[in-house]
Amino acid sequence: VATPLVTLTTDYGSGSGYPGQLKGVLLSAVPELRIVDISHGVPAYDLMAGALLLEACLPAFPLDTIHLAVVDPGVGTERRAICVVDPVGRRLVAPDNGLLTPFLGAGARVYQLADPTLVPQPRYATFHGRDLFAPVVAALAVGLPPERLGPLTPDPVRLDWPQAERGAGQVRGITLAVDSFGNLITSIREADIAGAEVRVALCDGRTARWVRTFGDGQPGELLALVGSGGRVEVAVREGSAASHLHRWRGVEVRLLLGGAVTLGAARSPC
Amino acid sequence: VATPLVTLTTDYGSGSGYPGQLKGVLLSAVPELRIVDISHGVPAYDLMAGALLLEACLPAFPLDTIHLAVVDPGVGTERRAICVVDPVGRRLVAPDNGLLTPFLGAGARVYQLADPTLVPQPRYATFHGRDLFAPVVAALAVGLPPERLGPLTPDPVRLDWPQAERGAGQVRGITLAVDSFGNLITSIREADIAGAEVRVALCDGRTARWVRTFGDGQPGELLALVGSGGRVEVAVREGSAASHLHRWRGVEVRLLLGGAVTLGAARSPC
Amino acid sequence: VATPLVTLTTDYGSGSGYPGQLKGVLLSAVPELRIVDISHGVPAYDLMAGALLLEACLPAFPLDTIHLAVVDPGVGTERRAICVVDPVGRRLVAPDNGLLTPFLGAGARVYQLADPTLVPQPRYATFHGRDLFAPVVAALAVGLPPERLGPLTPDPVRLDWPQAERGAGQVRGITLAVDSFGNLITSIREADIAGAEVRVALCDGRTARWVRTFGDGQPGELLALVGSGGRVEVAVREGSAASHLHRWRGVEVRLLLGGAVTLGAARSPC
Repeated sequence: VATPLVTLTTDYGSGSGYPGQLKGVLLSAVPELRIVDISHGVPAYDLMAGALLLEACLPAFPLDTIHLAVVDPGVGTERRAICVVDPVGRRLVAPDNGLLTPFLGAGARVYQLADPTLVPQPRYATFHGRDLFAPVVAALAVGLPPERLGPLTPDPVRLDWPQAERGAGQVRGITLAVDSFGNLITSIREADIAGAEVRVALCDGRTARWVRTFGDGQPGELLALVGSGGRVEVAVREGSAASHLHRWRGVEVRLLLGGAVTLGAARSPC
Repeated sequence: VATPLVTLTTDYGSGSGYPGQLKGVLLSAVPELRIVDISHGVPAYDLMAGALLLEACLPAFPLDTIHLAVVDPGVGTERRAICVVDPVGRRLVAPDNGLLTPFLGAGARVYQLADPTLVPQPRYATFHGRDLFAPVVAALAVGLPPERLGPLTPDPVRLDWPQAERGAGQVRGITLAVDSFGNLITSIREADIAGAEVRVALCDGRTARWVRTFGDGQPGELLALVGSGGRVEVAVREGSAASHLHRWRGVEVRLLLGGAVTLGAARSPC
Repeated sequence: VATPLVTLTTDYGSGSGYPGQLKGVLLSAVPELRIVDISHGVPAYDLMAGALLLEACLPAFPLDTIHLAVVDPGVGTERRAICVVDPVGRRLVAPDNGLLTPFLGAGARVYQLADPTLVPQPRYATFHGRDLFAPVVAALAVGLPPERLGPLTPDPVRLDWPQAERGAGQVRGITLAVDSFGNLITSIREADIAGAEVRVALCDGRTARWVRTFGDGQPGELLALVGSGGRVEVAVREGSAASHLHRWRGVEVRLLLGGAVTLGAARSPC
């Protein structure tokens, strides 16, 4: 296999025909290309949901994969388009609107898609995925170095989303996204717990039982656990936490920690 | 890559298992085949929606692609099955029920799937996609000439759908379909405007602002623009025009034209 | 093509990103692997729906295909994981919870996924599809014999679902699942009718007309027929039987048989 894998993540809707058009353009240019759909079900225009989905999914792919992500409420306006080479070497192509925030850490290089000889001028203003991003991805797939696409950009747009707050003996966060089962993904990462025992999990003022996996709960019981994307999730066994709580984004979650880990060093009160 | 690309467009539903069965049949016959889903989310039995989707999506694919399209309320009845070689040489396989209307222009050749040695007799009457069309597509993919499948048919079924009406200084049309964002696709094509400036766009008796792209509008404002499939669309920025208007098909749209183009030659009053 | 095909059937939701992660793991291990989605729209946690979907879809695939199926309410608990080599030689990998019931007939070999050198220890307890099953499938795809995975298991979990009851001149069953069109799949198999003429079909106390295909019915009329998966289905032409009946699982269906086949030999009264 000579060409890298390409993934697609969009809010186009899987039945819309728009993902198929991306693939048509990609395969017209690179017939042997292997393309994987990560999702075309990102909620429309929801940059945070798209960013969290990319954060959760990209670790499953080889590092030389090229990731095309399009959630693009500003398509056709002055918003820029970028190619990111993230700190571990992955290439990501997207509008410059914060969708790639999780990959903009120290060491990331961000190239503006600017060279008019390599970046097409789209005939239509409403489908840059097909008319601009896909041709750029095809060029990268056959070997174009990202630095050829345009100048390094020091100030890509970053989403500002809530982080967990670490306090004495506790961690506070909020829910940021919901998955297809109704599990709520929070702003608390596995690392925020740092191996400490969670004694009590509170969600929306209610107690959620801290468990290893869904099946450890009772039917209908509110649960909290470390999810497969490395973030604390709120869940209901064989049910939907989102339906249970009638909400999904912005629900407050607090973990009271204990056990062997000393938490005295944690400074910020909350 | 020795075999052509195959695309699939159906109303089967992406979670139904039916598209997978098509792929199983195709890959059993041609293991190296590359298959792209255009959509399995055509509204059930909706031939016009399927035809418009094909019209919008097929230009993204190489001309030697074979397109399999199945929206088939008459499956297993006397309705015929056809392979179209369209005026630009694309091959399309579908039931003969109007689904391929956009590809039946002057120069198209339409072959009935009739040769019993090449066209299977389906054991089940309800899934010709799997039992009849997919085997035919597999045969085409490995080189069968379409004319071997059966006789030329002079009278394939055509859908009768509204065209734009061009009048002095205006173009009238109606909405025909809705996309996954709630954008309404109309019967007015880019060519119907012929480069004229659109001064006023009216939709359902309301004024819609004529814009280049979604982000040019204000939130909640009704917009009209040339969409990526080459048809005028009605849209709402980061919203759904279909929800906004509580309707999607049959909504009247009128564009008042002006500017440099002389419209005096337009004859038909409307 | 040197490696076998792999299919995926899950309740993850096609827009969830979870199927993409399976593919990332599979393609990281076997870059040239061909992967087909059967469905990611199995109703969440619904083992019977998943089992019926597998039963209907797998005959379309080559026998050397490897089928990965994950509907897994007990993920991360003590439930076992298995690889089945079914009576016709197909390999299926799944949690041991009944999802593979249709493939556990006489002659099936069931291996527990137990060898710690071949079966990964998942870091997260909630996504064995990615962290345990996909790596096992990748190993099988490049030639690992199933018997290396662990010991033969004599007692895999089997779902207990209603069978058709054959009586004098009739067959009784119930609806078990619904497809994307609203067709209801019943517990009555084609073989249960044994070629007999169906004179009257009753569904939920109403008469359903016995037809060959959907288009033989009148709009709005309740129909019964042999569906493409080899089971009797209840349907409405260009409509949804599920919506028509306001139910989908557990609806009683009775077929009164007649014609050339002698049914006197049928013993069990019903």
